[in-house]
Amino acid sequence: MPHSFAYLSVPKLIELIQDIGIGEVMAGVADYMTDDFKRWPEFEKIPRLASHHKLGVVELMPVNDDHQFAFKYVNGHPANPAKGLQTVTAIGMLSDMATGYPKLLTEMTIATAVRTAVASAIAGRYLIADGADTMAIIGAGSQAEFQAHAFHEICGISKIVVFDIDVAASEKFIHNMTGSGLDITIATHVKQAVDRADIITTATAAKKKASVLPHDLIRPGQFINAIGGDCPGKTELDVNVLEMADIFVEYEPQTRVEGEIQQLSENHPVTEIWQVITGQANGRKDLDQITLFDSVGFAMEDFSILRYLYDEVRARGADETLDLIADPDDPRDLFSMLR
Amino acid sequence: MPHSFAYLSVPKLIELIQDIGIGEVMAGVADYMTDDFKRWPEFEKIPRLASHHKLGVVELMPVNDDHQFAFKYVNGHPANPAKGLQTVTAIGMLSDMATGYPKLLTEMTIATAVRTAVASAIAGRYLIADGADTMAIIGAGSQAEFQAHAFHEICGISKIVVFDIDVAASEKFIHNMTGSGLDITIATHVKQAVDRADIITTATAAKKKASVLPHDLIRPGQFINAIGGDCPGKTELDVNVLEMADIFVEYEPQTRVEGEIQQLSENHPVTEIWQVITGQANGRKDLDQITLFDSVGFAMEDFSILRYLYDEVRARGADETLDLIADPDDPRDLFSMLR
Repeated sequence: MPHSFAYLSVPKLIELIQDIGIGEVMAGVADYMTDDFKRWPEFEKIPRLASHHKLGVVELMPVNDDHQFAFKYVNGHPANPAKGLQTVTAIGMLSDMATGYPKLLTEMTIATAVRTAVASAIAGRYLIADGADTMAIIGAGSQAEFQAHAFHEICGISKIVVFDIDVAASEKFIHNMTGSGLDITIATHVKQAVDRADIITTATAAKKKASVLPHDLIRPGQFINAIGGDCPGKTELDVNVLEMADIFVEYEPQTRVEGEIQQLSENHPVTEIWQVITGQANGRKDLDQITLFDSVGFAMEDFSILRYLYDEVRARGADETLDLIADPDDPRDLFSMLR
Repeated sequence: MPHSFAYLSVPKLIELIQDIGIGEVMAGVADYMTDDFKRWPEFEKIPRLASHHKLGVVELMPVNDDHQFAFKYVNGHPANPAKGLQTVTAIGMLSDMATGYPKLLTEMTIATAVRTAVASAIAGRYLIADGADTMAIIGAGSQAEFQAHAFHEICGISKIVVFDIDVAASEKFIHNMTGSGLDITIATHVKQAVDRADIITTATAAKKKASVLPHDLIRPGQFINAIGGDCPGKTELDVNVLEMADIFVEYEPQTRVEGEIQQLSENHPVTEIWQVITGQANGRKDLDQITLFDSVGFAMEDFSILRYLYDEVRARGADETLDLIADPDDPRDLFSMLR
């Protein structure tokens, strides 16, 4: 009998998320990811493994605990859209450490967008000021709607002010958020967005060293959620912004190389967010503190959403299966399968 | 339009190999792999990435050149057969470096067995003595038939003497080789097999430090093809055998950790086989030399068979496709796929 495992194609993952509802998905993934952050020391962690090409990068992001192994295959190719292809695409797998057998293979482009937003909102729980209800989104690209839903569901944010240098992107955002229950306005410049905000999410496609958020616009008490700087040479905040804030990261060895903090000295203090979640370090200390989450995306977040998707798909019987594991009747007789 | 890529499930790969014929597959993969060994310096190489569990190991094996990226997910769990599962299973992927997009996802358990045998036979071309026609196979497990076909097709071996401590395994081998055109006999002890052989292939499931080939049986001029020692702590030859031979390896940094040579000092001389294939180093120098290929399996060999399978599957139109790459009409509008 062939050994098959769960498979979520693009249409099947979309169907699953639609069935559950995007808000419920955000909340569910947040539960799984918070649990995983709480047991951070149990994970075997390495910075992602990157293979470089003049047009982009191909990466493998593995992580495991004593029970499950997850990895994501992900690329980043800025010239792809000109060829009608995605800049970033991803595929993910979850498997069982005790047998090595795969449990789930899934599309991971959409799943990555979800888990990235959830990770930010989990950090937000500990880093935003009490009573915060308005988020500015600088850059209405492919992360924008996911961030809005995650902060609405997980942090109770009810108002969004969006700014993009391309007004069509902001209009796309408004259109996609129809029916979300969020109060959304378009800002005509960065200052207008930042002035109204308790939370500032920067998620631009800045390709090199950029500065999308002038430091003199920032007010005491704001939380900056910096999504866009996520590979060596690509940052979106200027150093002055970083120096005004207390900085929180996912996995320090990776963020030092890929995040906004690649612009700072290696000794500049940062706090890993799991330490805040477990109570070993402070999150926001007072109303005036400027807090900053330097998001680059870590493999454990993929692990969390893969666990969530696997459990949901199994509970709903919504999975197709793949026959990818050769399974001869006698383990010593693999060749018989070819006869 | 969804972006889909080629997919070889277990039954589809079997069908493809049967259509081509196992001998032709061995010869075809040997061509691809020889070409790749010849351009060895062009590959970005790292030792495999292993995640350990008390019951086994899960590994990612990536490699790339400037055009293509390949990786294999593979496990090794000695206790699996007792649960009705395979000790080793694998899945492989080939993708395009210029776009990062996948080209082929395939079952890789059978494909790994093929490429392992082809790598040995390629080494054999340079390391066996002129006129060699008989191979002893010590250990009639899942590699045995693949090794026999590869040495028959690639090195012109016409006679096999097989030995296994379990005679049923040898009989399984004879049964599977029916119609291969090879002259096969079962030996009742190791000495009987080795005495008749020009080539000795050891491919046992020795779990720890073992010695399946007494050194006093070995004759000048023989080529030893050591397959079974392939992870830290698992070897099948005693040190005396290693010291009698000139040793050839795939990728020295990996073999030092995983191969038979983990028993030797780190300075013990070995030659990477690509240097022999390109003429930068000697293979067999004289009729009396004892040569030894310490096979552990390297990612470039997966790369070679993935290239071969991709080309064959495209030429024959034999592939199914997978819809695993989210492909929104506007790259900035990923969220629209969820509406």
